[in-house]
Amino acid sequence: MNAPNRMGNQTIVYRNTPWIAASACAAGPREAQGPLGDRFDLVADTPDFGQESYEQAEVALLREACRICLDKAHVGEKSVQAMLGGDLLNQIMPSSLAARSLRIPFLGMYGACSTMSEGLLVGGLLVDGGYAAPVLCTAGSHYATAERQYRFPLEYGNQRTPASQWTVTGAGVVLLAQQGDAVYGKPLAKLTRGCIGRVVDMGVNDANNMGAAMAPAAAATLCAYFDDTGETPERFDRIITGDLGYVGSELLLEWCGKMGHSLPRERMMDCGLTIYDPGQDSHAGGSGCGCSAVVLSSYILPKLQSGEWQRVLFMATGALLSPTTSQQGETIPGVAHAVVIEGVR
Amino acid sequence: MNAPNRMGNQTIVYRNTPWIAASACAAGPREAQGPLGDRFDLVADTPDFGQESYEQAEVALLREACRICLDKAHVGEKSVQAMLGGDLLNQIMPSSLAARSLRIPFLGMYGACSTMSEGLLVGGLLVDGGYAAPVLCTAGSHYATAERQYRFPLEYGNQRTPASQWTVTGAGVVLLAQQGDAVYGKPLAKLTRGCIGRVVDMGVNDANNMGAAMAPAAAATLCAYFDDTGETPERFDRIITGDLGYVGSELLLEWCGKMGHSLPRERMMDCGLTIYDPGQDSHAGGSGCGCSAVVLSSYILPKLQSGEWQRVLFMATGALLSPTTSQQGETIPGVAHAVVIEGVR
Repeated sequence: MNAPNRMGNQTIVYRNTPWIAASACAAGPREAQGPLGDRFDLVADTPDFGQESYEQAEVALLREACRICLDKAHVGEKSVQAMLGGDLLNQIMPSSLAARSLRIPFLGMYGACSTMSEGLLVGGLLVDGGYAAPVLCTAGSHYATAERQYRFPLEYGNQRTPASQWTVTGAGVVLLAQQGDAVYGKPLAKLTRGCIGRVVDMGVNDANNMGAAMAPAAAATLCAYFDDTGETPERFDRIITGDLGYVGSELLLEWCGKMGHSLPRERMMDCGLTIYDPGQDSHAGGSGCGCSAVVLSSYILPKLQSGEWQRVLFMATGALLSPTTSQQGETIPGVAHAVVIEGVR
Repeated sequence: MNAPNRMGNQTIVYRNTPWIAASACAAGPREAQGPLGDRFDLVADTPDFGQESYEQAEVALLREACRICLDKAHVGEKSVQAMLGGDLLNQIMPSSLAARSLRIPFLGMYGACSTMSEGLLVGGLLVDGGYAAPVLCTAGSHYATAERQYRFPLEYGNQRTPASQWTVTGAGVVLLAQQGDAVYGKPLAKLTRGCIGRVVDMGVNDANNMGAAMAPAAAATLCAYFDDTGETPERFDRIITGDLGYVGSELLLEWCGKMGHSLPRERMMDCGLTIYDPGQDSHAGGSGCGCSAVVLSSYILPKLQSGEWQRVLFMATGALLSPTTSQQGETIPGVAHAVVIEGVR
């Protein structure tokens, strides 16, 4: 018996096309100096955002991005029926603490840097199936907290390798509403499909080369989507990856080519290569849950709203590791979830 | 505009009542000595389960529980359209590594010890809405890995406080299928409703008293469910909490009483008070993601299948903390998600 809202092995269909009713993002000072800086809703003057710790700054950025998003949609926290989100920190505490302040029913997600598309995918189910609306999907990260947790505290001043990426300090959030529900204003875009990724491991064990670890998973999800739907890459104005960076973006083209799907370079975009200026010395590009979330909110959704783009595939990419697994000699699997986002005519 | 499969503020309705087609659990030697020990599908002879580390043992227990469950349903890994799961370790690595072996599209969940009901709730959406089926929902934990991560490595031999609980070494998994899909054999039970919990914090800051930290969140979800649906506790053969233990179970009665919902003590059950014998010196009871998952699989579902119980509310309960938040002086919020599970006549 086939599920009715299903195509092939991994792809789901949102027949009721949930609307992206509103979106907002908040980011740190380094991100504000990048090419998208003037599009952010809120910029922290300092990395600690006036809080007692970087961890609390991460909480505050996420919480404030949520509040700005709800303000834009003229909706109170009490009216939001679910919040889905995650981050990179142990036990996704920043998201949990933000959910504590907002008092919105909360489903914690973890997909490393793939969390923004995982949240959209699952949030889309809640809205599309008529289980809850509106629903808030969130993701955030912070450079200082991620370095301290996964590698070394910044105070050690350790040297970064060329393939390393720079974790984005920032949070992006999206409010999903039922199609046609105009109380939140004109929608920015709509969700039409999703593709749940598999955990793929090609044996990369360099915790400073996330792009290489994630590229095979990204290729697997992308090829699964094309195989499931019979679509070609040309159906999209952009195929957008989360944070493959310079290294992973090249590897994605190689992997997909080997799997029989040639990707048109001019339609490819990586959020990690969009958020910083090459002169900002971020090595292989930006990364972190917040990277794709901030670029989605500040750059991708506005292009869909304006009509410059009609249809994009948004696929945040995650590297699944912890200091414990790295120290115990595990290799680094990746995962990537995709959603198809289209303009609302 | 109200969502159609919705009741009140937090409750969702599964109109297509997804079937629990199969279930399995695997646990450690200490759990096997408890009152449910002879009902487990697999018992590890030693806490390391023949693996190189306790972390790898946790992965192996979860992976094997999944394989046994799929065997029971006569379904291959390739036919499973999604796996939803989580655990207590940083970056939910055991679940991610099990998903790597199984190659099933994977959505990572994090709700601390509430993960089993969170996974059922979201997995239920996938099946009920016709987005994917069958779907595997999983949760697991390990005493030695949890102690090492949240408190101290066992080798330190530190003394346990009276309110502390014993993290269950074990994993429980459930296969959800579309209603009426008989290819997996006779169903064990069905899902009819879910209630998404809010993050609630009453200021508990003792990392050795999880029951007190979780009880307010459990009370909030339970009272929200009763308020949303107009049901009374008498509608259930059992109201089952995940791991409140002796301390939290008493507090739940108190909190609910204060909130206007008197709970009948004889219908209450806590998985943390079911899995060990009082003589096993587990202090305030069992805990961990695996606690409610193992008890669900080995004790609750068989009672629904046999007809001894017709309808239960299953609410796993999570304490949201990490060593970082504890060290930085944060209090410990809790979260609890509930699903209503009924027998199939």
